[in-house]
Amino acid sequence: MKAYGMLNKEELLQLQAQLEKEYEDVKKKGFKLDMSRGKPSILQMNMEMGIMDVLGSVADYQTEDGIDCRNYGLLEGIPEAKKLMAAMMGTASADSVIVCGNSSLAIMYDSVSRCMTHGVLGNTPWCKLDKVKFLCPVPGYDRHFKITEHFGIEMIPVPMTEEGPDMDMVEELAGKDDAIKGIWCVPKYSNPQGYSYSDETVKRFAALKPAAKDFRIFWDNAYAIHHLYDEAQVEILDILAECEKAGNPDIVYEFASTSKVSFPGGGVAALAASKANLEEILKSMTVQTIGYDKLNMLRHVRFFKDINGLNEHMKKHAQVLRPKFKAVLKVLNAELGSLGIAKWTEPKGGYFISFESLDGCAKEIVKRCKEAGVVLTGAGATFPYGKDPKDSNIRLAPTFPTLEELAAATDLFVLCVKLVSVEKLLSKFA
Amino acid sequence: MKAYGMLNKEELLQLQAQLEKEYEDVKKKGFKLDMSRGKPSILQMNMEMGIMDVLGSVADYQTEDGIDCRNYGLLEGIPEAKKLMAAMMGTASADSVIVCGNSSLAIMYDSVSRCMTHGVLGNTPWCKLDKVKFLCPVPGYDRHFKITEHFGIEMIPVPMTEEGPDMDMVEELAGKDDAIKGIWCVPKYSNPQGYSYSDETVKRFAALKPAAKDFRIFWDNAYAIHHLYDEAQVEILDILAECEKAGNPDIVYEFASTSKVSFPGGGVAALAASKANLEEILKSMTVQTIGYDKLNMLRHVRFFKDINGLNEHMKKHAQVLRPKFKAVLKVLNAELGSLGIAKWTEPKGGYFISFESLDGCAKEIVKRCKEAGVVLTGAGATFPYGKDPKDSNIRLAPTFPTLEELAAATDLFVLCVKLVSVEKLLSKFA
Repeated sequence: MKAYGMLNKEELLQLQAQLEKEYEDVKKKGFKLDMSRGKPSILQMNMEMGIMDVLGSVADYQTEDGIDCRNYGLLEGIPEAKKLMAAMMGTASADSVIVCGNSSLAIMYDSVSRCMTHGVLGNTPWCKLDKVKFLCPVPGYDRHFKITEHFGIEMIPVPMTEEGPDMDMVEELAGKDDAIKGIWCVPKYSNPQGYSYSDETVKRFAALKPAAKDFRIFWDNAYAIHHLYDEAQVEILDILAECEKAGNPDIVYEFASTSKVSFPGGGVAALAASKANLEEILKSMTVQTIGYDKLNMLRHVRFFKDINGLNEHMKKHAQVLRPKFKAVLKVLNAELGSLGIAKWTEPKGGYFISFESLDGCAKEIVKRCKEAGVVLTGAGATFPYGKDPKDSNIRLAPTFPTLEELAAATDLFVLCVKLVSVEKLLSKFA
Repeated sequence: MKAYGMLNKEELLQLQAQLEKEYEDVKKKGFKLDMSRGKPSILQMNMEMGIMDVLGSVADYQTEDGIDCRNYGLLEGIPEAKKLMAAMMGTASADSVIVCGNSSLAIMYDSVSRCMTHGVLGNTPWCKLDKVKFLCPVPGYDRHFKITEHFGIEMIPVPMTEEGPDMDMVEELAGKDDAIKGIWCVPKYSNPQGYSYSDETVKRFAALKPAAKDFRIFWDNAYAIHHLYDEAQVEILDILAECEKAGNPDIVYEFASTSKVSFPGGGVAALAASKANLEEILKSMTVQTIGYDKLNMLRHVRFFKDINGLNEHMKKHAQVLRPKFKAVLKVLNAELGSLGIAKWTEPKGGYFISFESLDGCAKEIVKRCKEAGVVLTGAGATFPYGKDPKDSNIRLAPTFPTLEELAAATDLFVLCVKLVSVEKLLSKFA
């Protein structure tokens, strides 16, 4: 197939008519599929059913140091859960970790909220400042951007590369503007690209010298053990250790959860940070709650046991997820590979594929898919304020549907991409 | 035994010597008991062990309307949990309820935090105001006061009566000062007195006309079903319904949890409020989290089934708790009843007994108990900023110790009360 850009008007019109017909045919099939979020599939969740009654089959509900997990106490989480989450995050010391509730997003929200109301290590609370800004690598995770938007924080996009955010730009912006108080990062198998930060990127983050003393890197290590290929597991440097080495121990808050390891909403989430940061966080946390759900922590520890247990479990997940990613990529390559109207990433882990259409086409592609029954993540969602300046990025979430559903949905998707691209190219002749 | 106030100096000195000797003897026994918090006992927690594997023995994890509780979704909580918590709170409609995580305290903290950063229904965020004040019925719950203190909110004590807070004072203060933005309430079996608000009190709250439009009643219905006596169960009016009737539907946020029904830290917590309030709260909540732990909600619903299941369960709890309250009250009556040096409440439910010593004695009594190995709630904790102006209130928490431990601890307590009271009376002769 020729690249669409090489077609003349006549050829494009002919193609458009043919694609429109195909699209109308697909519409009649009455699909109904929600691919908007990165949800684990039922097959994955069936693999961790042992968590449900792992506490029913034992007689004791005590931590390794004898605390009864059924009662109040242990604000920082049970010791064995701290160890498990530290290992998952690739952080050396369990002492750097607090295990919280079921949602790392909630820890991030609480962290921003605390910075707003109480400030960071003695600095002015952000809510008392005229202007607070955040750097936002784009495309990025929509729910990060929603948090900063909710608190009225101005978001400045920074382009992503395959090595991580454009660090020249991060260093320059953070270095000169003390209203810039933080940056959102998904350092491993990034949402939505599946990129992982290079060692150089991590080291440059660790050595960052922002103008604002209360600048914090919000390091959302969401996909730390979410590899798709046994033979191509990406590892990144431990940000806490690197910051410590760089004499910058307090600059980062790290987050993670088992939402896509055990159950979304029924897992455990954790925070890792320096001693000074943890002390400050615990001052708020001890007011906010008497403690998080230690029984659920115990469930996870008893079921997964240790990092080996986690890794073995994630290999089983990968067996389910890998064919889904491969199936989508195969169709994209076969159908769009030679047309010059799109690019996409080929992640080695994580939950998403990032797709780039011709400029000005993403919204229309998502709209066409929706009209034919397949809901994708809203176009623009991967950018601050939901505004993709080029209207070209689409986040694909292949994890939840069955392989059959996914095949049908991807066929529809490429059809919509072709159709909208042809319309776009035709508009130049108008 | 004569009232201590009738004793002359010689008699007091003689008594002091005798009590000091007893105290030194008790000290040698080397007690080690923490009675500082209202923790359920191990016997109680053993009664709800079925929660641990109730989800292991079934094949389905779906809500009544077919949502898979293992995956993301349902920010407001699962429908059956909303019904259960509404029934527990005595609120007519499950639509008024959001079921959240494991801690009602965290919902209260989040609520205050949201008022600080985002304001209430279009009013100025509290963090942008020069001064924000809260009314605090005293003695009250220390963790309420810690939240308002943490956010720099000025706390104004309001005396408690057996019918609830002094409503003349509440109406006057809230009515004239628009910096007063809220009040902390534990309307049923109050912490620490065990008082329950009369119908008149609830109605006056519902009809409150505060100067501040963004005034909110923080109605912590913590002990809604925590009766001690089958034959003397207190019921209070439903504040949501009363506010609605009074044309004041938005003035209250209600909170509750199963922390002392199922497991402290492993239970579920809920929020109830008007439609307008819930809409506003959900706007923040949808940014804060993708959803709370639906599996834990499902565990609770499957185990307790409905309000009858809850009530039957709480009767079993009462069988364990009643003898403990009775044992403490018996010793207090026998040992202190005629001495004119103390008063205390005789709760019909809840988790605490409120004890009033002679003025200026509470701190010293708690200190003496601690030196002999029994840790009580810190004196002053029941007042804002931890400062009891009369230094007379002590919160007794009889729920956690065994009956044997409790007997020993109460003996020590009355001994310390006597000793410190004698010292106080003697100081008048100095």
